[in-house]
Formats: sequence, structure tokens, C-alpha cells
Amino acid sequence: MGPGPSEVHPRVLAALGMPLLGHLDPEFVTLMDETQQLLRYVFQTQNRLTIAVSGTGSAGMEAVVVNLIEPGDKMLVCVNGVFGSRMVDVAKRAGAEVTAIERPYGEVFDPEEVKAAIHRVRPKVVGIVHAETSTGAWQPVQEIAKIAHEAGALIAIDTVTSLGGVPVEIDAWEIDAVYSGTQKCLSCPPGLAPVSFSPRAAEVISSRKTKVQSWYLDMTMIQQYWGSDRVYHHTAPISMNYALREALALVVEEGLEARFARHALNARALKAGLAAMGVGVVVAEERHQLPQLTCAKIPDGIDDLTVRRRLLKDWGIEVGGGLGSLKGRAWRIGLMGHGSRQAHVTLLLAALETCLRDLGHSFEPGAALAAASKVYSQSAQPVSAGA
Amino acid sequence: MGPGPSEVHPRVLAALGMPLLGHLDPEFVTLMDETQQLLRYVFQTQNRLTIAVSGTGSAGMEAVVVNLIEPGDKMLVCVNGVFGSRMVDVAKRAGAEVTAIERPYGEVFDPEEVKAAIHRVRPKVVGIVHAETSTGAWQPVQEIAKIAHEAGALIAIDTVTSLGGVPVEIDAWEIDAVYSGTQKCLSCPPGLAPVSFSPRAAEVISSRKTKVQSWYLDMTMIQQYWGSDRVYHHTAPISMNYALREALALVVEEGLEARFARHALNARALKAGLAAMGVGVVVAEERHQLPQLTCAKIPDGIDDLTVRRRLLKDWGIEVGGGLGSLKGRAWRIGLMGHGSRQAHVTLLLAALETCLRDLGHSFEPGAALAAASKVYSQSAQPVSAGA
Repeated sequence: MGPGPSEVHPRVLAALGMPLLGHLDPEFVTLMDETQQLLRYVFQTQNRLTIAVSGTGSAGMEAVVVNLIEPGDKMLVCVNGVFGSRMVDVAKRAGAEVTAIERPYGEVFDPEEVKAAIHRVRPKVVGIVHAETSTGAWQPVQEIAKIAHEAGALIAIDTVTSLGGVPVEIDAWEIDAVYSGTQKCLSCPPGLAPVSFSPRAAEVISSRKTKVQSWYLDMTMIQQYWGSDRVYHHTAPISMNYALREALALVVEEGLEARFARHALNARALKAGLAAMGVGVVVAEERHQLPQLTCAKIPDGIDDLTVRRRLLKDWGIEVGGGLGSLKGRAWRIGLMGHGSRQAHVTLLLAALETCLRDLGHSFEPGAALAAASKVYSQSAQPVSAGA
Repeated sequence: MGPGPSEVHPRVLAALGMPLLGHLDPEFVTLMDETQQLLRYVFQTQNRLTIAVSGTGSAGMEAVVVNLIEPGDKMLVCVNGVFGSRMVDVAKRAGAEVTAIERPYGEVFDPEEVKAAIHRVRPKVVGIVHAETSTGAWQPVQEIAKIAHEAGALIAIDTVTSLGGVPVEIDAWEIDAVYSGTQKCLSCPPGLAPVSFSPRAAEVISSRKTKVQSWYLDMTMIQQYWGSDRVYHHTAPISMNYALREALALVVEEGLEARFARHALNARALKAGLAAMGVGVVVAEERHQLPQLTCAKIPDGIDDLTVRRRLLKDWGIEVGGGLGSLKGRAWRIGLMGHGSRQAHVTLLLAALETCLRDLGHSFEPGAALAAASKVYSQSAQPVSAGA
């Protein structure tokens, strides 16, 4: 129940353990085609250049940046957490002239301030994090994409924590480049980074004047392996691709709408329970709180590590610590993919009640579970035990 | 039985399917320590900076190059196959001033010609492939390492196909940087790249004037996650790390010497069988033929794809095609790790005899199996059915 890797579905674990095919075997090639189709569904896109990069989410970030940026290009990055800062670092290493605009941890950007920065900087690429894993902030990106396009810029978004948990609509929002990870709301182990590029972005890549600085992440070559030519580039992580296909199949079986509703419901129950124990959330406005990742404020007088160590030792529950300015001040509670279920919410609230009570934090006994239970009973939607 | 991914041991597949731990969980941290110790054993090194990069072998190559090279640095690369050429490309993208010396596919370099080039170029880094996966050529590197050091250069070697199949002695040979893959003689799925840097190379990295161009592969940061600090860098591919630890444990249980002897014996039997059918090997000198990868010359009049398709369809055997100048002219037959066993040699020879006979290639029936059998019966070592 940390910020990822999330709990992996048994069917995905079983897929991981299947015997290997060669990376040019006709059966594996078919599996790659299926994976691309499934990725297009979860990204809600028709983009041809939709693949899984052979690395974790950060490799996806680097793949997007180094393919779109040539030395000297201007990039505007919106920073309101660790992953925005990482994008700045990656872009500078790619030779970009980077301008960063900042918001405190837990806040989101207003389209107007991004618009002002775009007009000032005139960037080639605008980078923004859709779901900040360090804070649980849910950033609306559709209007910002529109503003970027009006100024002739490309828009690239980080959906590592959002994909499969809240709507990600690449075509409807006109996103040019997107990367994600497998280990959050897709409930697959870490090791692959789904990415997708719009035709406009693909055109920018194919008309580069310089080679992509990373051979390993060079989309101009990788797309020939994922395309109909099947030109060998590097050996694909076969087992991880098995796992990703199975994880994506589970998303299709559940359906995106049902999956988003499940994430939303469990988050509402969790937050109701936390509130009943006097535990608040870092992100102030509810509409900007990611349902799959709740960044809870640690109550005054409660020691971060004492609680997290006990949760792990006594109940086997992992909860993430705060990053950056939130270190020691927040817990990051993930309800992601297969891990987003009522049993997890209930167990965590019960365990946390025990920890906080033993540490002298005062609240009404049993109120947390009652509050969560009320959310579930009032929900119109059928509550599935898992997914 | 292609050039990798090789057949994965059932214990490794079982490890892949274990439930996930967090990448900062104390138990996972212990697993990383164990993996580092095991990697030091297979690399025969005491190098502190010995880790698994979160990508396939080519990511390991890029990690070595981009960490050692700063823009404008001189690098000498020895090219006698596809992977030497790849190293040239990677080094140029890293801003190196690259000089390549070349040998035809299937040949190896003589230390004297490398010495002459080193004295002419005065490179910061010399790069050479220990085991060329595209040709099966086994390059001696110890003397070249000595020559490089005498000229003040670092030596970096590619052991993607050699590690776990033939001796790789990083400390005894005084190698400064090495990368490998998991999917060859370690018999683990592809997805991680073991790397190791000598103290001298680590010093070069820590005293860089510029940032490493790849954030994802930056050893100055990654070593803090693998080191005692456990500073979060990127989410490690958890399941792949389980698999690698199990694969390395299997190497330790067998012992390196026994493992190398097994690879050597099975290769001798395979080549004896091929010779009995009039099928030669691309690498001329036996001492430069990798036992784990035999690059067999396709006999005149025999169509490459006809045979490979039938092997796959009728017997489920994958054999690799030729790369580069060997395309359509050679088969790459892997006997790697768990896949290096008598049953595989026997089945392949029997299947190939059937294919070649049906295509009208003339040779003495049954001679291949008899020749292979003779090698096994004359072997002093106990022949294990598997490993």
C-alpha cells in the first residue's frame, strides 16, 4: 500500500513465470502487437508509436525527453514535486535550455500561470506531471495542452501513477508525448515504461537534425522493432512483456470506467476513515487528490518511522514516506490497481488506529472504520471484493 | 538454442513469480546485497561498484560508455561484429571522439594491432567485445588490458555472451569496466545488465567535470541506492532482481569451473556432429570459438529460413540467423547456461540431419550422432544431464 510497486495480480505473476520465447519468435511478435493494441486502449489513443520502453518509468521519462529535445531546444517544465524536478534534470542533460516554473508540494498549476510562462519562454516542449507520486496531486492537463498547442509547443505528460487509476485520454486531450510505468495502477511489476507519441511528435522525432543521445532509448530505431519490419534493436525483456500483456488484459476485462470508479470509491472510504482519526490530506482541494495515492499528513507528535515500521512488522503493510519537503511529514498511501480494494482500506484503518492510539493520539475509537463503512454502504455502485 | 534469450531454469521462473516487495523494503535491500555478492563471484572481482543496471545488455553498454566518457574524450573501439559497431555508435552519441579499428566478422584482434592503434590514438578508454554474439568469436582481452594500462587508458569489455559460460576474471585481468546481460549463460530472462567498475574507473566517474548525459544510467546516483545510503533513485525491477539472484545462486551451486567445463564439452560434441555432416564453423581457430555460441556455416545450396522455420515448427527449436555480413550465411547455435546439455545437442543434430537430408545435402547418415556420442564417451568429466 505504498506509492508503488503495487500489489501484483496472481494472473500477472503466473504470466511472469511462463517459459521464454525468443524476441524475434513469431509468437512473441504477435504478443507485442497485442500489447500495443492494449496500450492504445489504456492510453485512449490511436497513436501508431505506442510501445513499452525496456526500463522503468524514469527510463520512459528520459525516452520522451531525449527523443523530442535536441541540444539548445527550449523546454518549459512545471515543477510541484520530485518528478517535475527530475524532468528538469533529465532535460538539462539532454542539452535543453530549461525554464522551470514552480508550485509548492501538494499544489497544482493554474492554466493561466502556465500560459504566461509559455508566452514568455516560447518552448519547443512543455512538460508536466499528471499525477505527482511524491504528493498525490492530480493535475488537470487538457487546458494546458491546448495553450501549449496555440503557442506552437508540444505537450509531454508524466502518467506513471495515473495510468489505469484515473482517466488518461491522450487523443481527446491532444497530448503529444506520454510516459508511464507498469508498477502503479496497472499492477504489474516494475521494469517497463509504456510510452506514446502523437503523429506530430513522431514527425518531430523523424525530422531531427541530430541523433538521439541515447542509443538504448532511440525511438527512430526502436519503432522499427515494434513496427512491421521487426528490425532487431535490443533484446526485449520477454517475461516483463508477458506480465504487461496480462496486466493490460485485466484492465480491459474490468473496463476503464469501472476501474476508475473502484479507485474513487476506495479512496473516499480511506479519506473518510483518516478524517475520523484527525488525519488530513496534503493536497487541499478534493478534486486535485489522486484516488490511487493519498498523501496523509502525519499528526503532530507522531513519529513517521515508528508508525511505518510497526505497520510493516505487525501487519505486513508497506506505506511510503514523504519525499522532498514532505519527508517525515507525510505518509503516501497507495490504493493502486489490484491493491485498490475494501479489504485493504479496512485493514489499514484498523492497523493505523491501533498505532496512533498506542502513541497517544486522541480520537474517537472505532470512528474510522464506521466512517469508511458508511462510504461503502452509501455507494450506488456494486462493490467488488477485488479486481 | 538461439543466441539468447536462453532457456531459463525452472527455479528462476519460480522466483520471477514471487509476490513483490517494495524497492526500499528491508528484505529487498538484503536481496540486493546478496545479488551484489553473487555478481562479484561470477565477475571474479572485489569491485565495490558491481550492480545490475535496470535494462537489458545494451543498457549496460550505454551505462559503461556514458559514465566513463565526457564530451571530447577519445575512445578506441575494436570492431569485429555487430556489438563492436554498436559500441562505436553509443560512444559517438556520448560525445566521444571515436576511432574504430576493424577485423572481418569471425576474426579476433591481435594485441599488437590494438597496441599500435592505442599508441596512435592515445584514447581515454579502449572498448572491446569479449564474446561477439554476432559471430561466436572469443576475444582474449588480458594482454590488451595490459597494453591499455601501459598507455594510461581504461579498458572496457562486453561480456554479454561470455559471463557464466567461459572465464571472466575482472580483477585478474585488470578490467576497468564490464557489462553483461542476464539472458545468455546466466539463463535468466532479459531485463537486467550486470556491470562492474574498478576503483580506477569509479574514480574517473566521481571526478567527472560534466554530468552523465543519461539520468537513468548515472552511476554517481545509482551507486547511492545500491550503497549503504539506499537513496531512492528509480524503482528497481523487483521481479527481475528475484530472478537474477536465483540464477546467480544456481551458478554458485554448480561452481564456475564445472560450468565452464560443461559448456566446453557440449560445444565439442556439437561441433563434432556438425563436422560429420559437412557443416563448418565461421570462426576458424578452435581456441577462438565460444563454446556457448557456435556460428555454423550454412552449406552451399541450403536455404537459411527453410531450415530455421522447420526446426521451429517441427521440433520447437529456435536457432539464430546470421547478423550483418553473415545474414543468410550462418546459423547461430546457442548452448548457454541451463540450455547447455547433452539432450539439446543430440536433438539439434538429429533434427538438423533430417532437415539437411530432406534438402538433398549429402553426408553419411547417423555420423553426426555417432561423432557427438564419441565426444561424450571420451570425456573424463562426469556428464551431468542438466545443471
